[in-house]
Amino acid sequence: MTPDPASRAGAILEIDLGAVVANWRTLAAKAAPATCTAVVKANGYGLGAARVARALVTAGCNRFFVATLDEGIALRQALGPKPEIAVLNGPLPGSSEEFVAARLMPVLNDPNQIEAWSRLTTRGECPPAMIHVDTGMSRLGLSPMEFEASIEHIASIGAAFLISHLACADTPAHPLNAIQRERFLAARHRLPGLKAGLAASSGIFLGPEFHFDFVRPGAALCGVNPTPGSPNPMHQAVRLAARMLQIRKIDSGESVGYGAEHFMSRPGLLATVSIGYADGWPRSLSHRGCGWLAGTRVPLIGRLSMDLATFDVSAAAPAELYPGNMIELIGEHYGVDDAAADAGTIGYDILTSLGARYHRIYREPDAG
Amino acid sequence: MTPDPASRAGAILEIDLGAVVANWRTLAAKAAPATCTAVVKANGYGLGAARVARALVTAGCNRFFVATLDEGIALRQALGPKPEIAVLNGPLPGSSEEFVAARLMPVLNDPNQIEAWSRLTTRGECPPAMIHVDTGMSRLGLSPMEFEASIEHIASIGAAFLISHLACADTPAHPLNAIQRERFLAARHRLPGLKAGLAASSGIFLGPEFHFDFVRPGAALCGVNPTPGSPNPMHQAVRLAARMLQIRKIDSGESVGYGAEHFMSRPGLLATVSIGYADGWPRSLSHRGCGWLAGTRVPLIGRLSMDLATFDVSAAAPAELYPGNMIELIGEHYGVDDAAADAGTIGYDILTSLGARYHRIYREPDAG
Repeated sequence: MTPDPASRAGAILEIDLGAVVANWRTLAAKAAPATCTAVVKANGYGLGAARVARALVTAGCNRFFVATLDEGIALRQALGPKPEIAVLNGPLPGSSEEFVAARLMPVLNDPNQIEAWSRLTTRGECPPAMIHVDTGMSRLGLSPMEFEASIEHIASIGAAFLISHLACADTPAHPLNAIQRERFLAARHRLPGLKAGLAASSGIFLGPEFHFDFVRPGAALCGVNPTPGSPNPMHQAVRLAARMLQIRKIDSGESVGYGAEHFMSRPGLLATVSIGYADGWPRSLSHRGCGWLAGTRVPLIGRLSMDLATFDVSAAAPAELYPGNMIELIGEHYGVDDAAADAGTIGYDILTSLGARYHRIYREPDAG
Repeated sequence: MTPDPASRAGAILEIDLGAVVANWRTLAAKAAPATCTAVVKANGYGLGAARVARALVTAGCNRFFVATLDEGIALRQALGPKPEIAVLNGPLPGSSEEFVAARLMPVLNDPNQIEAWSRLTTRGECPPAMIHVDTGMSRLGLSPMEFEASIEHIASIGAAFLISHLACADTPAHPLNAIQRERFLAARHRLPGLKAGLAASSGIFLGPEFHFDFVRPGAALCGVNPTPGSPNPMHQAVRLAARMLQIRKIDSGESVGYGAEHFMSRPGLLATVSIGYADGWPRSLSHRGCGWLAGTRVPLIGRLSMDLATFDVSAAAPAELYPGNMIELIGEHYGVDDAAADAGTIGYDILTSLGARYHRIYREPDAG
């Protein structure tokens, strides 16, 4: 007996690091001469922060963003001392010294964080800080008034970077984009020595006037369309498939699943598949999602269960209908953004929900 | 410097194993003289399968259910050789020997699985099998016709248990409950030597005629209300709280968050908190969810971000408004089922989505 984790897995997630690297190169070319960094927060948008970041280091990326201190500590261990790592959510009270120990750049979001960081910088070697000015997101960052009052303090702590975040970058015509850019320009004018970055994935596509000194794509690296409504310029980076556990004949008039909400309007064939909402496959795909079986679309019927999903496979080729064969859930026919649209959410949410029970297979980029 | 994972964590999940054990005892008393087992699939409904199951073993539970073979192998390692562990999703083709190696009871859902298992049982020591007959869920399990054709085969492989699953147990008046019970009774009549189990959490509350030889609660152990629409007879088993990163004043007319969808109708105070949909806090709580801060309800405003949520804390006591203080997201004021209702889903989904970034604190049951 040779136990094989892939063969016994109910669902398999393939992660194409070559596609991630290709996406990073596409975005870097688009943003040039601005520097292209990479956001790998939320475990690299569900794909694995360490694996994604290591592949991008090899491709030439040397500045990364995570959300939390714990993510920063883990990424520092994975990447070694060289790449820059910035922590977007900033230092919680009392945590500044942990930033220094792991050589993490804090994103300083309010005057108290600047104050706490300044007490450390007087004592010796600290990583440079990043200043976050709020230009219209009203989430994190210094207000324009706080920023103005902090100018000299910021200069004294050796801050090296200035960032802000766009609220409506995925909607190019939204008037807030130009307003946020103007506010960011004003802040940058006050601290011209800092390297400035405003654009995340979608912001890169708003044009060169949004690129400044560096851009920081995240979800687009992982294949989410940064230009909703237009063709996706990114490569899909994930493929998800789940195994059929059982194929059953069902008669007209019989009900399927919890709540007996789906009734068969004619006799058919159902496949019950080893994936459910506990795997992060959204429960809101109930009655609406689909899979693909050897080129045939098979609709998800009834309510999605915790560990199981049921598809109407009546239209599939009979030779494909056997336990152990796989139904594709994310792939060339049905991408991350398609699943998101059916689930009433966004591709970012589909990726960051990718579950812990999937057997994960990483495809490394081609050498060279 | 003493790094403290709890103090640097953006969000903390407390899991009350004492409440889980108390819930199991409540359900066991309700189901007596039927045996009370426990379902710990989907990582113990997000609470940690090994921790939950170990606490229940100490309380006297000796039969557990998981969904997948991988979950079964992990639980066997955690619990040692003694407790019975059944795998609901059954054996995939070629995996029967892995069930034997880890002494896992397969739930046999179709004739081919019975056939594959029979080839093993002729060769020696196998755990007993569980037969799943479908009575109206149309998901997994033998159809009545397949069951009838398999009667002698089932007897020959030393099957010890007979189960089915209710589709509408949370709706006591649903006519399918009585129909499923009648079908299950008919199957049991054909194999009276097998121990029979039909009821999961909600089924236990349909009355003694649904209890048979054993019941198998899962989500109710973790505090989900098994009787929707009536008071919850279960104790809450989780508490979730997330840290405020920044408190900001905001003017009337300013917009908040992605899409600039929320506009302030008057000046106020916002708190940005270290939790987001990448933590499994549902994105569908955008504009609808809430938290509690020292007894004051604080509404979640705007779209939920991946790593951040923004609350209107204008009504909170000023002394509570400082970075590092925590907003309660699941607790005595707002339970798992309340969050589910606001998110348009069910408590099961809230629990199984509980995220990997939370710092987890387990409260052990009191001794004795």
